[in-house]
Amino acid sequence: MAEPDFTAVEAAAARLAPVAVRTPLLEHPALNALTCGRLLLKAEPLQRTGSFKFRGAYNALSQQPGRPVVAYSSGNHAQGVAAAAALLGVPATIVMPADAPAIKRANTEALGARVQLYDRYRESREALATTLAETTGAVLVKPYDDPAVIAGQGTIGLELAAQAKALGVVPDAVLICCGGGGLSAGCGLALRHLLPACELYAVEPAGFDDTARSLAAGERLANAPGASSICDALLAPQPGRLTFALNQRQLTGGLVVDDAAVAEAMRLAFRHLKLVLEPGGAVALAAALSGRLPTAGRTIGVVLSGGNVDPDLYARILNERPDDNST
Amino acid sequence: MAEPDFTAVEAAAARLAPVAVRTPLLEHPALNALTCGRLLLKAEPLQRTGSFKFRGAYNALSQQPGRPVVAYSSGNHAQGVAAAAALLGVPATIVMPADAPAIKRANTEALGARVQLYDRYRESREALATTLAETTGAVLVKPYDDPAVIAGQGTIGLELAAQAKALGVVPDAVLICCGGGGLSAGCGLALRHLLPACELYAVEPAGFDDTARSLAAGERLANAPGASSICDALLAPQPGRLTFALNQRQLTGGLVVDDAAVAEAMRLAFRHLKLVLEPGGAVALAAALSGRLPTAGRTIGVVLSGGNVDPDLYARILNERPDDNST
Repeated sequence: MAEPDFTAVEAAAARLAPVAVRTPLLEHPALNALTCGRLLLKAEPLQRTGSFKFRGAYNALSQQPGRPVVAYSSGNHAQGVAAAAALLGVPATIVMPADAPAIKRANTEALGARVQLYDRYRESREALATTLAETTGAVLVKPYDDPAVIAGQGTIGLELAAQAKALGVVPDAVLICCGGGGLSAGCGLALRHLLPACELYAVEPAGFDDTARSLAAGERLANAPGASSICDALLAPQPGRLTFALNQRQLTGGLVVDDAAVAEAMRLAFRHLKLVLEPGGAVALAAALSGRLPTAGRTIGVVLSGGNVDPDLYARILNERPDDNST
Repeated sequence: MAEPDFTAVEAAAARLAPVAVRTPLLEHPALNALTCGRLLLKAEPLQRTGSFKFRGAYNALSQQPGRPVVAYSSGNHAQGVAAAAALLGVPATIVMPADAPAIKRANTEALGARVQLYDRYRESREALATTLAETTGAVLVKPYDDPAVIAGQGTIGLELAAQAKALGVVPDAVLICCGGGGLSAGCGLALRHLLPACELYAVEPAGFDDTARSLAAGERLANAPGASSICDALLAPQPGRLTFALNQRQLTGGLVVDDAAVAEAMRLAFRHLKLVLEPGGAVALAAALSGRLPTAGRTIGVVLSGGNVDPDLYARILNERPDDNST
C-alpha cells in the first residue's frame, strides 16, 4: 500500500467539505484551570455519526463510486461506513462483534447498513469480511490500515491547525486517541507539515498500549491477551503496518491512561463542556487532565474523538464518585 | 424601561464578539427523519457557562463598568452573571434558591461569585436582591425583564439567522424556550427583522405556561401555585412586563410540553447530538419532536438553551425507558 501524504489529506478535505461537519474547537476556563494551561478541544462527537470515523470512511468510499462496501468494526467505523454508503447510494454490510455497544449497532442499522455479527473471541473479523467482499464484489474498507482512511482522518489535523491559527495560538502538543493508529497517523501527516515543532502523542488505554510500546521498541508489538478496558473503540490487537510506519516517523511518543482517568474525563466533559464522550473518545482528554504530560503554561490540542456510548454505561459513570473526592 | 430594538441587539453582538462563543447550528439526519422535516439546532450548551444566559448578563454588565453586581437566579443567569463579572473584574453576589441544582451552585461559586441562599417558598428573591443592591451600591441585573439582558439574548437570533442563511435555507418557524421570556423577546427582535415571515413560538413546560396563556388572553397571567416540572430553569411565576410587551408583538404563539416529552428530547440529544441538555434547555426540541407544531417538509430553528443538569438527574433520565418503547 502506498503511504498517504499531506497532499492526500488536502484532497480528502476537499472531498469531505460538502458532507462532513467542520467540528468546533472548544475551550473551557475550568479545564484550563485544572491543567494550569490551555486545552483546545476538537469536538468530533459533533461529527456526522458521532465520531471522526465518518471522515476516513467517506474519503475511501467516494473514490470507488457505485460499488457495494464491506467493513468490520466494533462500532464507530461501522457507523462511518454506513453513513458514507448511504450518502453515496451503495449497499453496506458491516461485520460487528456480538458484544458491541447496542447504541453503535442500532445506529449502524438505522443508517441502512446490514449488520453481520461475529464472536470476538472465536472468529476472525478480517477473514469473515474478506470472504464476504470477495464473494460479493464489494470494496473492503479497513478501519485504519488504509491510505484513504488515514488521509480522511487527517482532515481533523488540518482543521485543528487552522482553528488554532484563527485563535492566534500555536499548540505545544497535540494528543490523539489511538486504537489501530489511523487517526494519529492521519493527524500526524497534517500536523507535522503545518506545525513542525509541535509534540504529537498517541494516547491509549492501559492494557492496550501496543502503539506506545511499539514506538518505544521500534517494532510492532501486540497486546497481551486477556486485558479489558471500558474503551471499546480502542481495542485493536496491534498497530497497523501502514499506520505504525507513519506514527513511528511522525509521533513524539505514546501516553497511557487507566479507566478511572477516562471516566473522570467523561464526567468533566459532561459538567463543563456539555459534550457526551464515549470512553475511547475521552482518552486524550484524560491524558491532559491526569498529568501524563506537562501542561502548565502550555497550549495542548486534544482530539475528543467520539460520543457513542450506551446510556446505561454513561449513567453509571456519571453516578460514580471517584475515591479521591469522596472525603 | 425603554424597549430594546434591533439596533440594541446588533450593539450587543459587537460587545459579545470577543468573549462569547458563536455556538454552532447543528443538524442530525435522525432528528430530521423523526420530524419529516429539517431541524436546525442552536447549541447554547456550548456557550460560556453552559447556557445562553452569559450573553444577556455580559451585555448588561459591560455597560456599567467598575460596579459590583447583584443578581437573583435559579442557576443559569447566576452563572452568566458570575462569568461576566469575573471577566470584567467586578465582585458578584447571587441570590439563589436553596434547592437549585447543585451543579449550578457549584459552578457559580467556582466562577468566583458569592452565593446567598433563600427559601423559594417563603422569601422574595426580588426583595432580597434589591435590598442587597441598595445597601452595597451594586448594579442589580434582572434575569429577564431588562432591556440590556433581552438585547444580549437576542444575539442568538442574529446568529441563527446568519447561520441558516449560510446553509442556504430560510426557517419556516423558530422555537425558543421560555421562562420569563427574555430569550424569546430578544430573539424576536432579531428574527422579526431578519426573517419577517418566520413563525416564532415560545415553548414552556406544562404547569408553567404563563406566556402561552397570556399571549392567548392578551394580558399577563400568572401560573397557578403548586405545579412542578423538571425544567428548573423555566419556573418564572408570570411573564415580565417588558418581555411580554415584546413577545405579544413579535411571537406567533406559545407551545407547551410535558416532562415526558422533555426527557425524551434529552435522550435523543444524548443519542444523536452527543450534547448534554438540561430539562429547561430541551423544551423547544421536545415541542418539535412531539408534534406541537407541523414539521413535515418544513425547516424549524430550535434553540437548545442550556446543559446545566445534575449528573444524578441526567443518569435517571437516561435510564428511563418511555412506556411506548418498552414493548
